[in-house]
Amino acid sequence: MTVTEQPAVLTIAGSDSGGGAGIQADLKVFTANGCYGASVAVALTAQNTRGVQAVYASPPAFIEQQLRSVLDDIPIKAMKTGMLFDVSSICTVVQVLRSHYAKDPESIPPLVCDPVCVSTSGHNLLQPDAVNVLVSELLPLVFLFTPNKSEAEIILSSHGLEPSDIIDLEGMVEASQALLTLGPKNVLLKGGHLTTTYNEVLKFRAARPDVRMVSTNFDGENTEILQAAGYDTQDCEVVVDVLRTPQRVALFLHPRVDSTSTHGTGCTLSAAIASQLAHGKSVNDGTALAIEYTHTAIESAIPIGKGHSPLNHGHALIMRTIPKATPRDPYPFVRMLIQSTTQQWKAYVEHQFVQQMARGTLPLECLQHVTKQGALYLKYYGRAHGLLVAKSSSSAEIKAASNTIIDVLNEVSPSNTARARWGVTDVDIHLTPESTATTAYGAFLMDCGLRGDGMSVTMAAAACLIGYGEVGLWFKKEQSRPGTWVVVEGNPYAQWFEQWSGEQYQTAVKTGMDILETIAAEDSPSPARFEEWRTVWERCTELERGFWDMALQQS
Amino acid sequence: MTVTEQPAVLTIAGSDSGGGAGIQADLKVFTANGCYGASVAVALTAQNTRGVQAVYASPPAFIEQQLRSVLDDIPIKAMKTGMLFDVSSICTVVQVLRSHYAKDPESIPPLVCDPVCVSTSGHNLLQPDAVNVLVSELLPLVFLFTPNKSEAEIILSSHGLEPSDIIDLEGMVEASQALLTLGPKNVLLKGGHLTTTYNEVLKFRAARPDVRMVSTNFDGENTEILQAAGYDTQDCEVVVDVLRTPQRVALFLHPRVDSTSTHGTGCTLSAAIASQLAHGKSVNDGTALAIEYTHTAIESAIPIGKGHSPLNHGHALIMRTIPKATPRDPYPFVRMLIQSTTQQWKAYVEHQFVQQMARGTLPLECLQHVTKQGALYLKYYGRAHGLLVAKSSSSAEIKAASNTIIDVLNEVSPSNTARARWGVTDVDIHLTPESTATTAYGAFLMDCGLRGDGMSVTMAAAACLIGYGEVGLWFKKEQSRPGTWVVVEGNPYAQWFEQWSGEQYQTAVKTGMDILETIAAEDSPSPARFEEWRTVWERCTELERGFWDMALQQS
Repeated sequence: MTVTEQPAVLTIAGSDSGGGAGIQADLKVFTANGCYGASVAVALTAQNTRGVQAVYASPPAFIEQQLRSVLDDIPIKAMKTGMLFDVSSICTVVQVLRSHYAKDPESIPPLVCDPVCVSTSGHNLLQPDAVNVLVSELLPLVFLFTPNKSEAEIILSSHGLEPSDIIDLEGMVEASQALLTLGPKNVLLKGGHLTTTYNEVLKFRAARPDVRMVSTNFDGENTEILQAAGYDTQDCEVVVDVLRTPQRVALFLHPRVDSTSTHGTGCTLSAAIASQLAHGKSVNDGTALAIEYTHTAIESAIPIGKGHSPLNHGHALIMRTIPKATPRDPYPFVRMLIQSTTQQWKAYVEHQFVQQMARGTLPLECLQHVTKQGALYLKYYGRAHGLLVAKSSSSAEIKAASNTIIDVLNEVSPSNTARARWGVTDVDIHLTPESTATTAYGAFLMDCGLRGDGMSVTMAAAACLIGYGEVGLWFKKEQSRPGTWVVVEGNPYAQWFEQWSGEQYQTAVKTGMDILETIAAEDSPSPARFEEWRTVWERCTELERGFWDMALQQS
Repeated sequence: MTVTEQPAVLTIAGSDSGGGAGIQADLKVFTANGCYGASVAVALTAQNTRGVQAVYASPPAFIEQQLRSVLDDIPIKAMKTGMLFDVSSICTVVQVLRSHYAKDPESIPPLVCDPVCVSTSGHNLLQPDAVNVLVSELLPLVFLFTPNKSEAEIILSSHGLEPSDIIDLEGMVEASQALLTLGPKNVLLKGGHLTTTYNEVLKFRAARPDVRMVSTNFDGENTEILQAAGYDTQDCEVVVDVLRTPQRVALFLHPRVDSTSTHGTGCTLSAAIASQLAHGKSVNDGTALAIEYTHTAIESAIPIGKGHSPLNHGHALIMRTIPKATPRDPYPFVRMLIQSTTQQWKAYVEHQFVQQMARGTLPLECLQHVTKQGALYLKYYGRAHGLLVAKSSSSAEIKAASNTIIDVLNEVSPSNTARARWGVTDVDIHLTPESTATTAYGAFLMDCGLRGDGMSVTMAAAACLIGYGEVGLWFKKEQSRPGTWVVVEGNPYAQWFEQWSGEQYQTAVKTGMDILETIAAEDSPSPARFEEWRTVWERCTELERGFWDMALQQS
């Protein structure tokens, strides 16, 4: 089996120009359920929400060509048939499927057959003589057969099978059993045309304890609080779909919805089941998920057109705020942060302070000042990571944050001699008053540590971490330009830049960016949450700029 | 204009059975871009990733019927044409569009025309004599014309227009201008067949400052850090698409991707632009977004089939963890919380302690014990809301959390006489040692307050708030059953239940649930974040149960 994130599903059905039913609905459902959709158009319809204006059948030879093109190339994991229209198209489909899987008939992917006899608007979509052929030829290949009440009645009565009158739950269960004898592996008899109540179902169930009941929407125990708040399902009318497998009978309950947005409901349900089967779900689980999906698609439908509106196939989807990382764009989150703060970012990483250092013209006092303030700032930085330790969920997180604290302690330790290079002693640091720019930045770090979850501190630390890495590389790049303005020879500050462009620091930056991207991918943020993160980043780039303003002004 | 969340977009094109191009790709793109898709099938193809095996054209009359069915019913906000195949289908489409919008030709929705002359696999998809008809008949109706280099050459040379040789950027810009004179309002000349570098583009741009440059992927300034980490776009080959509007020329840059997953790229891009136009974007913004969408769709493609693979149309989508609220399911988040903890929830809200109270058989000492411990617990509850105040972003949030603290203070105040009913005095509370069950629950609230963002405290408070509301309603429901086991008459504890089922408390519960659902809908959680929330809920239902264990055992 080819491993794909998006298993391929094939629909063999009619085309609905209006987009609410047929292969159009199927393709939307496949996409919305994380599958790759292929299609064989058995017939075209000129159709909209008000009805079917015309049908134009594909020639059998062309149905065959489409089906062979798909099966020969694409690893289909599940299939569905919708409108098959006439005898010749049914026979063509059966013949191609049989011949394609002739070597190993067991390898045929699960096929969901929705018999689509009549459209929601009343148009006949399966010619009368085709019913028997569907049963005798197609059903033996079918994994799950999904007729509604009236389709079941047409099919059963055409085969002289009783009961052909499906008027209650007992009748549905009996009919599902009769349908199973016609050849499909499983039957889902849809109850949308029958009206019952939850209490009637419970009564029926009491008499038939062998029957399974699946009812996400009715698991009433200890949910009075939901019912009081409008979720009143106990007394409402319910729709019961009966799933008959060789092993047992299951009833799937959902509340009857008073809606005219039902165009393509059958197509949607069978396509959703096929999607779930393609994902490897069992017939029971797949049916339960597909019924729930379809039910919400009706309830959340946005009316369109003047007749029976289509369903809302995309109700379960939301847009990513951060694009998927790709080989060419491995850091989409960091890229978006930088691109959303172009001006502030530039003002920070190309600050006059940095430029004067790159030229070697910066008064030493400025660097001394910022070195002292930097040491004071680092205490906040360490403390904020203490809050991150406190907010961690795993030992790995605790360790990572603790290591940052240890690094900071080493940096500000009296035994750290790096500062001596700029003529700054530990005593100097001890004696220097804290600048308001230092307090602003440091206190903001602590506020992030207090307010948000762990990601808040991580975000607040990012602008400093990544910014210094950028400054280092920027210097290196400017330095490599022909006729560069950057001074290296005899520049007392060249070493300062080398620290940030060096391998050790750049590795730390890359690790930090990897962490940010991993969090962003695994905990894909809502627009509101993304904006929270982005705001922290933006504020920190501004505070970094303020830090260097302070250095220049020695304020 | 009808207000819809999902504007309708129409594709008039061929059907690709393989699902990677044609109306199938278009419908997937519309869905992935938040639009409702309708389609007119101009021709069917038997096609897969390896090529086009056969083409079967729809009769012109049936193209007309499909197009009329759609336009008569569905409020189309944008359209695109793909493969139109031959003269008669082009003339049919033009004639129906002209007649449908005859009364107000300006009201025609923006039409994107992708001339689809040849498939990726080399199959001829537009008959030679149809090129002139496309230009003379269709182009005057077109809002945006999107040929690639070879299509532009075919079209320009068939009209005796020079330059018909498009070999560099200069040639592309000139060709786009020549194409504009053929009638479309705007032209996007796609440069996928041309190879250039970022530096060449910069050089060209320097000579033509009037030309706009759009390059999300190349905004190189101050992004050395991204380039060092693998995002190296400066020296790579780039693809330049030229957008010619009546006002100006814009170059859209993206890195050339070395991929064979390009089946249906043209269809995808034009469908994505049509989607953006339907959302009301300008031609500039819509084109930029659509190019980025298409680019990522190629880069993130999951290979399928044995030839040129289709794109990953769903790359920008993720699944909701909490379903959309509907009239029948207005509290999907709270429902999922309860359903995910059925056993713990039942053990809490139907606890022996509650049942003995409902029967009136609970020893008074037990209620006295839990009343005292409850007062101790409420101090933690208040303090945790102090952390919520500290974590709030708006005055409204600060106020809501502060009000909870005030309510708690009133509840535990010595002047609150409600406790006297059960014979518990303020002195009793002062003297009672804190149970470990109380510490466990209280300290967990504080830990939630410390660790997460504001939602963490809100979640931790939910099990208590909603659970007592459920207990109150459960009592009421049991009480109303014929022959109920619940004792009301003479039950000293009946008043206790009334407090929780009463209007005041139930209103507070509903407000709390509304807040939870609003947060869940506005800050749609990732699976990881949802699991964090759910875990807090689960732990609190267990701690509530432990609280009543403690009450029964007077421990």
